Amino acid sequence: MRFLHTADWHIGKKLHGYDLLTEQRDAYEQIKAIALAEQVDAVVIAGDLYDRALPSEDAVSTLDAMLVDLNRQQQFPLLAISGNHDSAVRLSQGSEWFASTDFYLKTTIADGVKPVVLGDTQFFLLPYFEPFAVRQYFQDDSLKTVAAGMARLVTAMQEQFDPTKKHVLVAHFFAAGSQHSDSETLVQVGGLNAVPVDLLTPFDYVALGHLHRKEALQNEPTIKYSGSPLKFSTSEAADTKGVWIVDTDKTPVEVTFKPLKPLHDLVVLTDSFAHLMDPEVKYNVTPDDFIAVALTDTTPIANVMQRLKTRFPKIIELQRVNQLDVTPETLNIEEVQRDPLTLLGDFFGTVTDHALTEQQQEWAKTTLQQAMKEEN
Amino acid sequence: MRFLHTADWHIGKKLHGYDLLTEQRDAYEQIKAIALAEQVDAVVIAGDLYDRALPSEDAVSTLDAMLVDLNRQQQFPLLAISGNHDSAVRLSQGSEWFASTDFYLKTTIADGVKPVVLGDTQFFLLPYFEPFAVRQYFQDDSLKTVAAGMARLVTAMQEQFDPTKKHVLVAHFFAAGSQHSDSETLVQVGGLNAVPVDLLTPFDYVALGHLHRKEALQNEPTIKYSGSPLKFSTSEAADTKGVWIVDTDKTPVEVTFKPLKPLHDLVVLTDSFAHLMDPEVKYNVTPDDFIAVALTDTTPIANVMQRLKTRFPKIIELQRVNQLDVTPETLNIEEVQRDPLTLLGDFFGTVTDHALTEQQQEWAKTTLQQAMKEEN
Repeated sequence: MRFLHTADWHIGKKLHGYDLLTEQRDAYEQIKAIALAEQVDAVVIAGDLYDRALPSEDAVSTLDAMLVDLNRQQQFPLLAISGNHDSAVRLSQGSEWFASTDFYLKTTIADGVKPVVLGDTQFFLLPYFEPFAVRQYFQDDSLKTVAAGMARLVTAMQEQFDPTKKHVLVAHFFAAGSQHSDSETLVQVGGLNAVPVDLLTPFDYVALGHLHRKEALQNEPTIKYSGSPLKFSTSEAADTKGVWIVDTDKTPVEVTFKPLKPLHDLVVLTDSFAHLMDPEVKYNVTPDDFIAVALTDTTPIANVMQRLKTRFPKIIELQRVNQLDVTPETLNIEEVQRDPLTLLGDFFGTVTDHALTEQQQEWAKTTLQQAMKEEN
Repeated sequence: MRFLHTADWHIGKKLHGYDLLTEQRDAYEQIKAIALAEQVDAVVIAGDLYDRALPSEDAVSTLDAMLVDLNRQQQFPLLAISGNHDSAVRLSQGSEWFASTDFYLKTTIADGVKPVVLGDTQFFLLPYFEPFAVRQYFQDDSLKTVAAGMARLVTAMQEQFDPTKKHVLVAHFFAAGSQHSDSETLVQVGGLNAVPVDLLTPFDYVALGHLHRKEALQNEPTIKYSGSPLKFSTSEAADTKGVWIVDTDKTPVEVTFKPLKPLHDLVVLTDSFAHLMDPEVKYNVTPDDFIAVALTDTTPIANVMQRLKTRFPKIIELQRVNQLDVTPETLNIEEVQRDPLTLLGDFFGTVTDHALTEQQQEWAKTTLQQAMKEEN
């Protein structure tokens, strides 16, 4: 059994207001191409197919088209679970029919402990769960944490183990020891909700979703996060995104990383405003790339976002690396006390690099007089 | 071919704030029982499966359970279309897999003109559509109305007619000549959107959804609204709800009405307040029935809704049949000028049918004195 492991597609996610459907469709096409080139026997998606419990119609039709293509056109068996970002109920609409073409989408704990057998492998498709759901399922109030619930679930799964088969767990949780990035929902990772990796040793391979960086678990050769297919935060800017190809015919299973090339990258540019605006300075980015700017300047800059966007249209973040250097001494009392018309002219000049035209001065004067008359 | 024709389930609909899922599940069980007893070859649902484009999770899981039961457990072939209350995109999630068990759910015009063949019959499953969608589909800007679009669609369907088969249209629109009830969305019925029934003569049977009363089309033996399984408005209170059993083996097709018995009925009670509150007067209703009260009284009644609800817990509407009889002469100036404590006692007596206790009088007195002190 040779399968592709991916997760955290988050279809419908926006990056600081920018729609990502184009980028997500491109990543999907690359994943499909890898599945075809690697001649895998199945594709595993370890949760968070959607970004929201209530996805938009565009997100619904986009994901539906991908799943139809992968399973019905390309005829890959599909193994998927719901993540914490999915509504289990909404995602599972129609899933009773999916198994007719070997598409197994599981959204309940009860389904998670029953193995799906494909070839030489038993797959346990365990969706994201909260501790109360395990308490309810086992009728055991002592299961207070995800870790306690998981220990019990692993025991239940082991009772189903066929010793002549390989055993793969597909799940969506925070495995202890892993490092998280900024694009996961922080309240739901780590702490009481962490699952110790030791619990997972009975499985030949564990295909995880939840954390968006494959680097989150580095020292476990057979317990892997695939990470998201796209970079969803600046903390992932330096990462290489991709999928795992898992071969269960080898013992231990053989795991190979296949990178995805971002259609539009997420890049952090750390530099001074003057450099960033200088047409002579070349950065390795395209106008469609998502740019996080880390300014090194220590002085205030008027209209900084608007001006930066003339060079980098898709700025998703603007931060200052250094403290602003503003002291009371820099305030020139004489300048502040000038008459309003002069002040307006100075401000206009600073912001636009142009002086007010005579017509504009006339408009400003009339408006100011009008305003003063109303005030009196 | 013998099939059951139903429509306008509106799963998730609320009746003046009251959840109807219990009543909808009961109606579904009756429909299933009729399908089994009549040994039909298929079940047709002519649109508005949900009440809203964005149904609640409860509505999603309720409808999904019904469709799974009908098609996968009971193994009835299912023919369904989206109505104006459904989101075509959301409803169709997963529909590519449904045909594996003869569940045909169509949500686009392109799908509507391609017949689904079951036994001796070609079914054309045409979802609810807006004129712009037909213009786009035929690339013809002259199609301004639903009627014009429908004429063109019928021609396109006739080109697909197999003369050795019967031809059934399943659709969701306002057929001209039909009378509407209050529970449809008024802006979307009638007027420019009406389809003349003459257009529909090429079909052996037309299974319509959209209007909630089967009585909406009375003189067409083979063009029928099934109506909704439940009463959704007081204008439907006197109706008998049900489904049609259609037998295409006969020429013309044989059409039989099968009634549904409401779990909790919707009843209009027209009577005086005194009668309605009199325990001696018996009405043929249960505490779970939905009651619309039409009061015959001509005098104001204090707390009327609250008091009526003590006898009829689920009042969904309160109307006055007669004009209120309030004239200036009925105001007794002496009564109005009494001291506040006496006025309060009178009001309390009118509303509760009890006098103030000594303790309550004491509280009222203290509070009034306090209020007067603060006023001065």
